[in-house]
Amino acid sequence: RYGEAELEDQVGVVTGLAWTEVGGELLTIEGVMMPGKGKMTVTGNLKDVMKESISAAASYVRSRAVDFGIEPPLFDRRDIHVHVPEGATPKDGPSAGVAMATAIVSVMTGIPVRKDVAMTGEITLRGRVLPIGGLKEKLLAAHRGGIKLVLIPEDNAKDLADIPDNVKNGLEIIPVSRVGEALRHALVRMPERIEWTEPTVDAKAKIASDEEAGAGIVAH
Amino acid sequence: RYGEAELEDQVGVVTGLAWTEVGGELLTIEGVMMPGKGKMTVTGNLKDVMKESISAAASYVRSRAVDFGIEPPLFDRRDIHVHVPEGATPKDGPSAGVAMATAIVSVMTGIPVRKDVAMTGEITLRGRVLPIGGLKEKLLAAHRGGIKLVLIPEDNAKDLADIPDNVKNGLEIIPVSRVGEALRHALVRMPERIEWTEPTVDAKAKIASDEEAGAGIVAH
Amino acid sequence: RYGEAELEDQVGVVTGLAWTEVGGELLTIEGVMMPGKGKMTVTGNLKDVMKESISAAASYVRSRAVDFGIEPPLFDRRDIHVHVPEGATPKDGPSAGVAMATAIVSVMTGIPVRKDVAMTGEITLRGRVLPIGGLKEKLLAAHRGGIKLVLIPEDNAKDLADIPDNVKNGLEIIPVSRVGEALRHALVRMPERIEWTEPTVDAKAKIASDEEAGAGIVAH
Amino acid sequence: RYGEAELEDQVGVVTGLAWTEVGGELLTIEGVMMPGKGKMTVTGNLKDVMKESISAAASYVRSRAVDFGIEPPLFDRRDIHVHVPEGATPKDGPSAGVAMATAIVSVMTGIPVRKDVAMTGEITLRGRVLPIGGLKEKLLAAHRGGIKLVLIPEDNAKDLADIPDNVKNGLEIIPVSRVGEALRHALVRMPERIEWTEPTVDAKAKIASDEEAGAGIVAH
Amino acid sequence: RYGEAELEDQVGVVTGLAWTEVGGELLTIEGVMMPGKGKMTVTGNLKDVMKESISAAASYVRSRAVDFGIEPPLFDRRDIHVHVPEGATPKDGPSAGVAMATAIVSVMTGIPVRKDVAMTGEITLRGRVLPIGGLKEKLLAAHRGGIKLVLIPEDNAKDLADIPDNVKNGLEIIPVSRVGEALRHALVRMPERIEWTEPTVDAKAKIASDEEAGAGIVAH
Amino acid sequence: RYGEAELEDQVGVVTGLAWTEVGGELLTIEGVMMPGKGKMTVTGNLKDVMKESISAAASYVRSRAVDFGIEPPLFDRRDIHVHVPEGATPKDGPSAGVAMATAIVSVMTGIPVRKDVAMTGEITLRGRVLPIGGLKEKLLAAHRGGIKLVLIPEDNAKDLADIPDNVKNGLEIIPVSRVGEALRHALVRMPERIEWTEPTVDAKAKIASDEEAGAGIVAH
Ligand SMILES: [Ca+2]
Ligand SMILES: [Ca+2]
Ligand SMILES: [Ca+2]
Ligand SMILES: [Ca+2]
Ligand SMILES: [Ca+2]
Ligand SMILES: [Ca+2]
Ligand SMILES: [Ca+2]
Ligand SMILES: [Ca+2]
Ligand SMILES: [Ca+2]
Ligand SMILES: [Ca+2]
Ligand SMILES: [Ca+2]
Ligand SMILES: [Ca+2]
Repeated sequence: RYGEAELEDQVGVVTGLAWTEVGGELLTIEGVMMPGKGKMTVTGNLKDVMKESISAAASYVRSRAVDFGIEPPLFDRRDIHVHVPEGATPKDGPSAGVAMATAIVSVMTGIPVRKDVAMTGEITLRGRVLPIGGLKEKLLAAHRGGIKLVLIPEDNAKDLADIPDNVKNGLEIIPVSRVGEALRHALVRMPERIEWTEPTVDAKAKIASDEEAGAGIVAH
Repeated sequence: RYGEAELEDQVGVVTGLAWTEVGGELLTIEGVMMPGKGKMTVTGNLKDVMKESISAAASYVRSRAVDFGIEPPLFDRRDIHVHVPEGATPKDGPSAGVAMATAIVSVMTGIPVRKDVAMTGEITLRGRVLPIGGLKEKLLAAHRGGIKLVLIPEDNAKDLADIPDNVKNGLEIIPVSRVGEALRHALVRMPERIEWTEPTVDAKAKIASDEEAGAGIVAH
Repeated sequence: RYGEAELEDQVGVVTGLAWTEVGGELLTIEGVMMPGKGKMTVTGNLKDVMKESISAAASYVRSRAVDFGIEPPLFDRRDIHVHVPEGATPKDGPSAGVAMATAIVSVMTGIPVRKDVAMTGEITLRGRVLPIGGLKEKLLAAHRGGIKLVLIPEDNAKDLADIPDNVKNGLEIIPVSRVGEALRHALVRMPERIEWTEPTVDAKAKIASDEEAGAGIVAH
Repeated sequence: RYGEAELEDQVGVVTGLAWTEVGGELLTIEGVMMPGKGKMTVTGNLKDVMKESISAAASYVRSRAVDFGIEPPLFDRRDIHVHVPEGATPKDGPSAGVAMATAIVSVMTGIPVRKDVAMTGEITLRGRVLPIGGLKEKLLAAHRGGIKLVLIPEDNAKDLADIPDNVKNGLEIIPVSRVGEALRHALVRMPERIEWTEPTVDAKAKIASDEEAGAGIVAH
Repeated sequence: RYGEAELEDQVGVVTGLAWTEVGGELLTIEGVMMPGKGKMTVTGNLKDVMKESISAAASYVRSRAVDFGIEPPLFDRRDIHVHVPEGATPKDGPSAGVAMATAIVSVMTGIPVRKDVAMTGEITLRGRVLPIGGLKEKLLAAHRGGIKLVLIPEDNAKDLADIPDNVKNGLEIIPVSRVGEALRHALVRMPERIEWTEPTVDAKAKIASDEEAGAGIVAH
Repeated sequence: RYGEAELEDQVGVVTGLAWTEVGGELLTIEGVMMPGKGKMTVTGNLKDVMKESISAAASYVRSRAVDFGIEPPLFDRRDIHVHVPEGATPKDGPSAGVAMATAIVSVMTGIPVRKDVAMTGEITLRGRVLPIGGLKEKLLAAHRGGIKLVLIPEDNAKDLADIPDNVKNGLEIIPVSRVGEALRHALVRMPERIEWTEPTVDAKAKIASDEEAGAGIVAH
């Protein structure tokens, strides 16, 4: 039953939508988090532009960590692996960006992703959602695969006119212009913003001045 | 006697199944663990997709370490080397994923692998087993090689109708949908889940605040 | 509405101008800053010369940090990611240098960039602005995209004679010869120079001599 | 006199056997050990599969270090360089694996290799010896080069029927199925197994708990 | 006015001379120094041989640091970036070596380079100046660009016979055989040699022996 | 006067002999040593086999450091740069090995190389000198270049019969079979062996046990 909607809400598992020569299809994106040192691994026969979309998604999440309730130092104590199954198939392009960002927020917060949501859209570092190609084929694939809700870029809303009615009737389709909107629809609950003050470096500065004063006991 | 079932249950040695232009064959996968710093080495004339399948298998095991009774810090104090012998033959594809995961669990836990089991299946980071190609050729090779039990992806069960009766009679064939199922059949015993709490970072936080308070003797 | 002027003044978001076979177009450049260790990531399907222009922009900013009110050690405690959206389009050439420098100053200082400014120009490590090609096409794109003010290299001022009057009337066009001039026009306010003295290494030297004297308590 | 048996038993110097289009030839393998940090260097115009055979040999030795009387931490305090002379000739293939393992055991233990022994065989991480090609040409080269004893893979023993009698009479030929067997024939004496317990990490754990208890003076 | 002599004496800015299919031209070389950790960055669409010429220049300067009044540890506390503007033009060859060395000495010492000097010459690690090609075209470019003084390799002095008189009358041309000579002409003043004794490692040795003696309080 | 014998005995400067399509020529090899961390840089448009010959030479010297009077830790506190001038000419092959080893011993010991010596020969990690090609062309180049003494591989001595008498009369030609022999002829004096005992790790072990005993003041 690969290529269909997931059976349960899971942490780090997001359904993207791919567009190939032979039509659209569901693209499962999996993220896992491990104790580690801030390393990011990406696999799944991904070409450069898709790898970059994961990098951009990760920086988007890191730069907004506190908005997502993630303490920034957590990024240094965890490794993340993002994998796109079916290793035999090469995959490229930026349009899974919003799905990548959703997967990373989900693994970092532990909040599951709704199993019947699929999404497509390039993202920018600020979390804007940019338009994609192949909307029709992607929506057909979502429909076939048992998806209930599809998140598409706001700038593709104009293309909905070309989509067959049975597809539009069978799917809820929500245009989004920001990753934040996508997260509100895709995660089973939104993470809550935390307060975070970077530990001051005054401590270090203080030690430095102690050193200059020739303090008796100093260590490096 | 290379290309036949192993003579004894061994730690880190798993029999995979490969499918080439000239038919199926047994693929020995060897893992060893060494004192180290968390480095993973892969050799055996492996191409990118097979290398990625080892990476995914390793992240699957690391992200579920406690389920397999492995204390997470062990990954930082060990190096692992996965080798696929017959260096003269290039090897590629994702279908040895379940065998890679089994090899890594075996070396990390020290639990031997049953010598008369072979297996095939791509895995995902969550441990799902995805379908593979060449089932018939692989089963023929298993039969020829003296294998007793073959683990195949659940999604390939439908293809068993095409397999000759003598092969199906001579082999026990078990479809599996999760790596966990494969491990239960392949390992001589299942590892037991442990409890694990990540050492708190409060200690560090505490020191930081001491520093801010200007504690007398502080070293970095 | 991608390809148009930004809707609000934002930190790290700069509008550059690209020149392709099919004409000029707006090129959004996004920078974000994250807690980190001084790593610079660049994405957006960038080829080597554009990557180098980001590297040169970063060194220009780092080498003048105090002029921009940035404490030099901040570079070691932050990661920066510069992304140029529309990952499907390869991008190359040095002419976005002044936009790259503006983006980096903006993210490091937290000072927003004026939303209706676009700019083009190669930069040198000293912050000189060198001439670029495709001025006409770039100005047409700026005009189309709702830009108010365009910063161009001083050495391209002579090419303004060829620009249609309606474009020149619809845009304020300012030739600049230094990155500093561009910043004065592009940032909502100029950063203020700070005083900075590198922490002396005498402390370290002192400790070394303490060690030689056999001080009672020494740590490394 | 290059291409002939060595004149004395030496540490780290092993004679392998290569098979090229123009026949077999002796292949000197040299290992040296230096104070260092665990770095492995390989030179001699080696292509990927031969480089991997050195990597596999090194992991075999590291994973069995105590069996060879080597204290595991020694690997972190030494660099090893394996070189295959005649840099003008590219070299590839896995069949020097057993010679590589022998060279590494010799340099790590300081036990010399018998000067009149040559060997051929791919190895696996577990130390199994796999069959090779070109047995006849290799034995002819050994004979020509003044070798007394040749170690060949057990699985090649069946090919000895094709070897000319004068070669078989002039050489002692011993089939081996494990690296351990090869070492017993090739080293002037076998290393002795040591007992080794990995230093417990309890010390570290203890300190951590001290920290949590707010011990007065703690440094990182 | 790019491609002409500089307007003022600047630190780290050196005028080289390039020789291309379409004639000679001025090549600005820019160096900047930043607080850092000893990293060297080179940009400007440079090919391997020109990159190597910067590496050789840097090692020449580092190995003679005290002759140039540079305390050797400064190299570990600074990053240097060398850039050759006009990123759209690929650049190669060793003949900018003497200009590279001059740029590096200038940025490390803070001594400006005379604005009206251009130079050409490959250098060796010892600071010898080797002959170059295209002398005539390079001198014509220098003349056109308003340069007053050109430093050329001693071994090219014999080629001056072929240079038009108006060029030779308009330029002072000084053959040099060592980088040191070039520096004396190019820098506004020569750096002064300093005395430098590498901090002894006896301190460390002493601590080590304290440890062996079981000193009461020792930390690493 | 490039391409001729050196004018004075210098540290780290060795004359090798190259053989190209257009004949033999002198090849200056320059080494410099800098305060550093054990990094080796090689430049001069060198291809892989020549780079490997430098790597092998360095390991030969490091593994015999005490024989050359070099304290092994010095390798960790110095960077070495080996450069082969005339960056415009690609250079390859193993035959400069003995010259590379001589350059490295010279820079590490500070002992100058005799200015009128040239040498050719591949080396092995053990310091054996292997035969080379182009002996005649190389000797002609040495003769032309004012060299007095040429060191050649012992295994090339048989080729001296083909060398013109005027060349053999004008040069002293010494066949050598080991790097040590070459050093005795090339260096102005031989370095003297030192005694060296690796600092014991017992100190560290002792501290570890102190930690286990819960010593009051412990730092990491
Ligand atoms: Ca599919
Ligand atoms: Ca919306
Ligand atoms: Ca096979
Ligand atoms: Ca099942
Ligand atoms: Ca576009
Ligand atoms: Ca202006
Ligand atoms: Ca040979
Ligand atoms: Ca046997
Ligand atoms: Ca130009
Ligand atoms: Ca002169
Ligand atoms: Ca030449
Ligand atoms: Ca001799």
